[in-house]
Amino acid sequence: MTGELSFQDQGSVLHCHGCGPDNASGLQIKSYWEDAGAVARWKPEPHHCGGSRDILNGGIIASLIDCHSLNLAIAHAYRAESRPIGSSPRIAYVTANINIDYLKPTPIHEPVELRATISRIEGRKTWVRCSLSAAGQICATGEVLGVRVM
Amino acid sequence: MTGELSFQDQGSVLHCHGCGPDNASGLQIKSYWEDAGAVARWKPEPHHCGGSRDILNGGIIASLIDCHSLNLAIAHAYRAESRPIGSSPRIAYVTANINIDYLKPTPIHEPVELRATISRIEGRKTWVRCSLSAAGQICATGEVLGVRVM
Repeated sequence: MTGELSFQDQGSVLHCHGCGPDNASGLQIKSYWEDAGAVARWKPEPHHCGGSRDILNGGIIASLIDCHSLNLAIAHAYRAESRPIGSSPRIAYVTANINIDYLKPTPIHEPVELRATISRIEGRKTWVRCSLSAAGQICATGEVLGVRVM
Repeated sequence: MTGELSFQDQGSVLHCHGCGPDNASGLQIKSYWEDAGAVARWKPEPHHCGGSRDILNGGIIASLIDCHSLNLAIAHAYRAESRPIGSSPRIAYVTANINIDYLKPTPIHEPVELRATISRIEGRKTWVRCSLSAAGQICATGEVLGVRVM
C-alpha cells in the first residue's frame, strides 16, 4: 500500500545525505503524513554525538530538521497537484534558509521525533516549522524556507 | 609547533561528529587562526550530496558552519584567558541558535573554505559570523550563537 510508504520511499528524494534511500552512508530519515503535517522518527548512532558523547550533534539536528521539512514541502506540492509523490515531472525543493533554536541538549540514546507543519506558501516559496523532541521533550525548533526548483 | 596545529588537534573538541579528531565516522574539520578569525578547508565525499549528486548537502553545510564557528568561540575564550587550547579547566560551548542563508548551490567536487569571525560577545554568549565558499564563490553564510557551558 503506497499510502504507508514514507515520502522518501515513494521517491520524494533519492540521493540526499540526510534522507535519500539510495544513500547508504546517509541518515536515511523517513517522513510520513500525520494530520496536516509530517512526522519522522529516527535513532541516532553513537558517532552522531556533539562535544559530549551523551548528546546529539547540532549539525545532525540541522540535517534532520532540514530534510524532514523539505520532504513535507515536496509531498505537499505533489498533493496540491493531485499526483503521487515521485511521479513525473519530479518536484524538487532546495533550502534557502534554516533557522534553528537549540532549546536543551538532545539525548543521543533515545529516538528523536520530528514534527513539521507548513506555515506559509508564497509562489515557489514554502516555509515549514519543525520541532525535534526526544524522551517526550522538545529539544530544538526550526524554520526552513524551501524554494521550488523550476 | 603548537601554533601550527588546528584548534581541534590542540584539544578544543574531542568527540563531536562535525569536528572531533576522535570521531572516526565524523567530518573532522580542522580550524586555524587567520587574522582575527578562523579558517577551515574541507573536502566533501560523494555521499555528502544533497538532492542532486553534484551539490553539497545543506545539513552538512550547517554542520560545517556550526562546528567551525564554535571552535572559533572556544579558541577565542582560551586566548582571552591567556591559556593554551585544551588546557584545564576545559572550555566548552554549545550552540543556542544557527541561522544560515543558502545563497547558491555548493559544488561537491571542490574543497570548501569556511571563514569565521566573532561579531559580538556578551557574558557567556558569543555570536560568530561564518561564510562557506567553493570555487571562489560564497555559497552560504551563517550566524551561530554559542553559549559557554559553566
